[in-house]
Amino acid sequence: MLSFSISGTYTDLYEITMGQTYFLEGRQEEPASFDYFFRKIPDKGGYVLFAGLHDLLDVLEDLHFTDEDIAYLQDLNLNPSFIDFLKGFNFKGTLYAAAEGEVVFPNTPVVRVEGTILETQLVESLLLNILNFESLVATKASRMRYVAGNRILSDFGLRRAHGPGAVLAARAAMVGGFNSTSNVYAAQKYGIPAAGTMAHSFIESYDDELEAFRAFARARPDGCIFLVDTYNTLKSGVPNAITAARELEALGHKAIGIRLDSGDLATLAKRSRTMLNEAGLPYLKIITSNQLDEYVIKELLEQQAPIDIFGVGTKLVTGAPDAALDGVYKIAMAAGKPRLKLSETKEKITLPGIKQVLRLMDTNGMFYGADAIVLAAEGDHADLLRHPFEDDTSLRINGYLQEPLLQKVMENGKRTAPQPPLPEITAFSQSRLKLLPDAFKHFDNPQGYNVGLSQKLWDLREQLKQHYRQ
Amino acid sequence: MLSFSISGTYTDLYEITMGQTYFLEGRQEEPASFDYFFRKIPDKGGYVLFAGLHDLLDVLEDLHFTDEDIAYLQDLNLNPSFIDFLKGFNFKGTLYAAAEGEVVFPNTPVVRVEGTILETQLVESLLLNILNFESLVATKASRMRYVAGNRILSDFGLRRAHGPGAVLAARAAMVGGFNSTSNVYAAQKYGIPAAGTMAHSFIESYDDELEAFRAFARARPDGCIFLVDTYNTLKSGVPNAITAARELEALGHKAIGIRLDSGDLATLAKRSRTMLNEAGLPYLKIITSNQLDEYVIKELLEQQAPIDIFGVGTKLVTGAPDAALDGVYKIAMAAGKPRLKLSETKEKITLPGIKQVLRLMDTNGMFYGADAIVLAAEGDHADLLRHPFEDDTSLRINGYLQEPLLQKVMENGKRTAPQPPLPEITAFSQSRLKLLPDAFKHFDNPQGYNVGLSQKLWDLREQLKQHYRQ
Repeated sequence: MLSFSISGTYTDLYEITMGQTYFLEGRQEEPASFDYFFRKIPDKGGYVLFAGLHDLLDVLEDLHFTDEDIAYLQDLNLNPSFIDFLKGFNFKGTLYAAAEGEVVFPNTPVVRVEGTILETQLVESLLLNILNFESLVATKASRMRYVAGNRILSDFGLRRAHGPGAVLAARAAMVGGFNSTSNVYAAQKYGIPAAGTMAHSFIESYDDELEAFRAFARARPDGCIFLVDTYNTLKSGVPNAITAARELEALGHKAIGIRLDSGDLATLAKRSRTMLNEAGLPYLKIITSNQLDEYVIKELLEQQAPIDIFGVGTKLVTGAPDAALDGVYKIAMAAGKPRLKLSETKEKITLPGIKQVLRLMDTNGMFYGADAIVLAAEGDHADLLRHPFEDDTSLRINGYLQEPLLQKVMENGKRTAPQPPLPEITAFSQSRLKLLPDAFKHFDNPQGYNVGLSQKLWDLREQLKQHYRQ
Repeated sequence: MLSFSISGTYTDLYEITMGQTYFLEGRQEEPASFDYFFRKIPDKGGYVLFAGLHDLLDVLEDLHFTDEDIAYLQDLNLNPSFIDFLKGFNFKGTLYAAAEGEVVFPNTPVVRVEGTILETQLVESLLLNILNFESLVATKASRMRYVAGNRILSDFGLRRAHGPGAVLAARAAMVGGFNSTSNVYAAQKYGIPAAGTMAHSFIESYDDELEAFRAFARARPDGCIFLVDTYNTLKSGVPNAITAARELEALGHKAIGIRLDSGDLATLAKRSRTMLNEAGLPYLKIITSNQLDEYVIKELLEQQAPIDIFGVGTKLVTGAPDAALDGVYKIAMAAGKPRLKLSETKEKITLPGIKQVLRLMDTNGMFYGADAIVLAAEGDHADLLRHPFEDDTSLRINGYLQEPLLQKVMENGKRTAPQPPLPEITAFSQSRLKLLPDAFKHFDNPQGYNVGLSQKLWDLREQLKQHYRQ
C-alpha cells in the first residue's frame, strides 16, 4: 500500500533545524507574522485564482508529529529536548486569508500567518506545497471555463498528473469551474461528480465494435458514452453508436453521447452532429478529449464545433508549460518588529508589517483594476495609493468602494467557520471572475492589475531599507 | 489531516464501468495483456529513465477496495453483484518490466501486464499515474546528473511540487542520480538522505545577520550551511559566514558551507570561493539554488563556477516545461487473440501480441543505438530487424549481443523478488547511462534511438491491419 498522510515531517528539513534554533535560543514563543504571495502569473495570464485554502486548514488543524515521525527525527541529529518539544507540537496559529476562489494578483498578500515564530516557520513548506499547486490548477481551470461558456468541463488527468497530486488537482479544477472528474478517488474524497466514458482497449477486446458498444450498454444502460474513433470514426464508430443508442431507446434507455479522441475534432464533431441529428438522436452529446487546453477549446469553439463536453487531462493537472505557481512565504514581523528582505531587484524587496489588502471596486461594482496594500492598523480604508516602486506616482482612491480581502479563517489553530461545500467555493470563484473585466482575462497580453501601497506602508518600507542598508 | 492511501478507487471511473461490463458479460476471467510505453521523450531529450516500478508493485501487491470505497461505489449506480465482486478483489496479475532505472526509448514496451482482462484494465490509471510521473522526474534528474559530474545534487522542490507528488518526485530524483532531498517526509518514507540549509526569514528574524549565523551554529554546530544573500552577499553574508565558521572551528566544529540564492551565481561563487580560501576555510562548500535546471547547471560549470552542491526545485519536481511523460497503456492480447488499434497516424498503430524487447550491444559493450521488439515466443533473439514503418528498410542483427529487457517482476500479484534498496536502483541507472553513447545524451538535437520489429511481429501487425480494415 502506498499512502501519504500529511504530518509534521511533511516539510523541508531547514524548517525543522531553524525551529530547533528558535527553541534552543528560547525564542520559540516570540510572535511572528508571515505573508504568502506570488510574483508571476502562470501562462502570462492576467490573474490567479486562489485555491487550496481549505485543504491547508484541514492539515493545520490536525498538524502533529506521529510516533513514526518522532522516531525518524532521532536519526537527524536533532537536540533531544527539541524532539521532546515536537512530541507535543500542535499548530496554534492564526490565519487571515483571501476566500478560496478569490481572484488575486502578484505581489499582494493572499494569506497572513500569525503565531509563534517556531510554528509559523515550520508550516512554510506545506503551506506552499498545497496553495501553489491548487492555485495553479484552479487558475488553469478557470481559463478553460472562460472560453467554454456553459459547456461541461471534466478532469481526465489522473494518468498524467504528478502521482497523488492528481487528487488535489481534481479538487482545484472544481474551484476553477470544472463540473466533474474521472478520478474516482478524488470524487469520493471531495464529493465531486465522477464521470467517464470507455477506452479503446475495451473496444479492441471485442472482435466487433458494435458488440463492444452493446455489451457496455447492457451493463450500464443509462451511462453510455461511446468512444467512436477506434477503427474509423465516421464510417464505423458513429454508425455503430447510432445503432447501439437506438437499441437502448427501444429498451427505454437513453445513451449520453459519443466521444471523439483523435483526428480533426472540429470537423469530426460537425459531421458526427449531423449524423446523430439525422438519425433522430439530437440528445446525444459530443464529448471530445485529446491534448486539450484553453487554447484548443477556444479554437474549436471559434470553428463552431458542436462540442458539449470537454475532457481535459495533462495541461489541466500539470499546469504546463509553467507547471508551478511561484508563491513564496516571507517574514513580515518578528519579535514585535517589522522585517524586510533586501534585494538588488527592487521588486523583490518584501513588504514589512501586518498588512491588509483592499480591493477597489468601480461604480458598476466591477474590480477597478488596482488592489491597495495597507497596514492592518490603518483600518479597512486608504485615501491615497502609492505606486509600489516609483517615487512620484500616486492615486487618490477615497471615492472607491474598498473591500478588505484578508479575513480571519483560523484562530489559535482552529477554523473560525466550517469548511464550505465545494460547489459553494466554485460559485464564489465564478461570481468573482464575473467582476473582473475581460481585459484581465484575455490570454494574449492581458492588462496588468495594479497594486499600490498606502503612504504608511511605503514609509515603513523606506525606513527599514535605510536601516538595513546602513 | 489530509491523507492519501492508494486503494481500488485510485482509478478513472471508466476502468470500473468497463470492468463491470466484463463482469456482467461473464468475461472477467478472460486472459489479457497490456503494454506500457510512451511516444515522446520530454524536453526533446534522447532517452527516458524508467522509474516508479517498485512504488507500483507496492500498490499492486496490496490493491483492494476498502470498506469506504465499497460504500462509495454504491453511489455510482453500479451493479450490486459487481460491487460484491469488488469487495473480494485483489490484483493477481503478472508483470514483466524493464528494471527500474533502465534507459528506455519511445514506442517500445517498458512494462507488460498479464492477467484477467478485468484486473489488467482496472490498474491502467494508477499504473500510468505512478510510472509516467516518476519516469519524468528521474529523466530530468539524470540530465542534471549528466552535467553536474560528481557534484552533489539535492532536491529542494517540495514547495513547488504538485501536492503529495513531491514525495514521489524525491524518490524519482534519487533514481535519476540525486544525492539527497530537503523533503523530510520523503526522506523518512524512502530512506533518502535529508538535507537543508536556512531561510532568509530565519536571518531576518534576528536584528543582525551574524547573530543569526551564531545562533544556528550553537544549535547545530556540525550542520551549518549559512545563507549569505539576505542583505549583501559579498559585503555582509560571506564575511559573517567566515566569522561564524571560524568561531565554530575554535570550538572544534566545522561548518559545511555557504548558500547563494540570488544574483549572478557564477561570479558570486568565484568571489566567495576566493574569500573563503583566503580566510583559511577551503573546506567550506558552496551551495547554490534559485531556478536551477540542467541548462543553468551546465552553463554555471562551463563558466568554471566553483559550486559543490546544487539545490534544485521547480524544474526537477515538475519536469517543466513538458511536465508530463505521455506514457500509455494499450491492449495487445484479449480472449487469446492479439489485438491492435488502428489510427490514421501510422506511428499510433499499436503492436499486437506478447512481446519482448531486446537491447542490442556493440562490441564495446555499449548500447548499439537500436532496440528490437520481438514476439516473446520467438525467444530472446532476432536475426533481422524491420524498420517499424518503412517497407524496405531492415537490418541484420545476428552479430550483436541481445539483452532481453522485460523480466518477470510480479507473478500472480506477488513480487518475484524483494524491492532493491534505492541506492542499488540509483547505481543501476548510472551504470546503464554509462552504456548510452553521449550522442543520445546531448540536450540539443540528441541522436534518435532506433527501434525495429522482428519479421514475425511485423507480419502479425500487417495481418491484423488487413483484418480490421476490411
